[in-house]
Amino acid sequence: MKLLEDRIRKEGKVLPGGIIKVDGFLNHRVDPALMKDLAKEIHRYFPDEGITAILTCEASGIAFGEACAEEFGVPMVFAKKAKSDNIEGGLYQSQIFSYTYKKTVTLIVAKDWLNASDKVLIVDDFLANGEALRGLVEIVRQAGAELAGIGIAVEKGFQPGGKKLREQGIKLHSLAIIESADENGITFREEC
Amino acid sequence: MKLLEDRIRKEGKVLPGGIIKVDGFLNHRVDPALMKDLAKEIHRYFPDEGITAILTCEASGIAFGEACAEEFGVPMVFAKKAKSDNIEGGLYQSQIFSYTYKKTVTLIVAKDWLNASDKVLIVDDFLANGEALRGLVEIVRQAGAELAGIGIAVEKGFQPGGKKLREQGIKLHSLAIIESADENGITFREEC
Repeated sequence: MKLLEDRIRKEGKVLPGGIIKVDGFLNHRVDPALMKDLAKEIHRYFPDEGITAILTCEASGIAFGEACAEEFGVPMVFAKKAKSDNIEGGLYQSQIFSYTYKKTVTLIVAKDWLNASDKVLIVDDFLANGEALRGLVEIVRQAGAELAGIGIAVEKGFQPGGKKLREQGIKLHSLAIIESADENGITFREEC
Repeated sequence: MKLLEDRIRKEGKVLPGGIIKVDGFLNHRVDPALMKDLAKEIHRYFPDEGITAILTCEASGIAFGEACAEEFGVPMVFAKKAKSDNIEGGLYQSQIFSYTYKKTVTLIVAKDWLNASDKVLIVDDFLANGEALRGLVEIVRQAGAELAGIGIAVEKGFQPGGKKLREQGIKLHSLAIIESADENGITFREEC
């Protein structure tokens, strides 16, 4: 999606270790007009498929998730990251490894808000190693719900998450796939 | 705001200890249409005041914050809760006590995203003890920015946060103020 690629080129920062900061418009300061445009594009890719819920993960997926939910006219559920080992009942839960915090965290969703009658589109702002998405897919399966697919704003194509999810046959669409990012700039995968 | 009060009456659950769960539409599963209505009402209360940014706090403030940002046509910045003591430079930061997690957490905002030329409207989904809001006000002051006011979805009027903030002369508007909540039901403050 050219609009997003241009924005990343213009405002994104590449830090050592392949870290790409887009926190001026995506995940710290959020541009709501851009979110709306991204959500419309996700809707074009997953049109009229009877989706009943958008599922994402706190915290940085919420803004994109809400924009998608508004576009699809369905609720947005965000998985919480359990802050303690003392997790109450009535929850779907999935353990993931957080590369950001270098520890295992548990994603939780109250059973009240997803069930076997749902058709779920998972969305997230970023896809790198795909751990958060693996956890969200697991939660959709625990709920017995149908997975419509996964919509991502920015995928780091040089990390393995996207490949792992596509190999499972999951319909995954990323609005921008970064092929490489270094001191020479950012290159995007053509197929976007 | 009758729409929100009706929704709380219909779908809210009162747990022992005055805990009010509205996680079916506000802060776990989010109804984007309701968010839009709440944001319009906040905009009516803070019209044309030259607001340049919406500031909120991760995670549950983000959905309401983004709806407000879209309504005002400005960016939304969300304060992050620092996950480690190793906080990098270039940040505004404020320590608050989290009653949810019963510990001190540090709210952080990158200095890149707020400065002295900003006029900031703080919003949050809930106001109880007011610690998160105290931290956000502190960050606005550190930035040298002007505080336009605070917009809240649900205030627990029987906890001290709202009173403390209003006593400082801050323009605070809550869309629903719960006066009492127990096994007999939920009562709202009339002035809403």
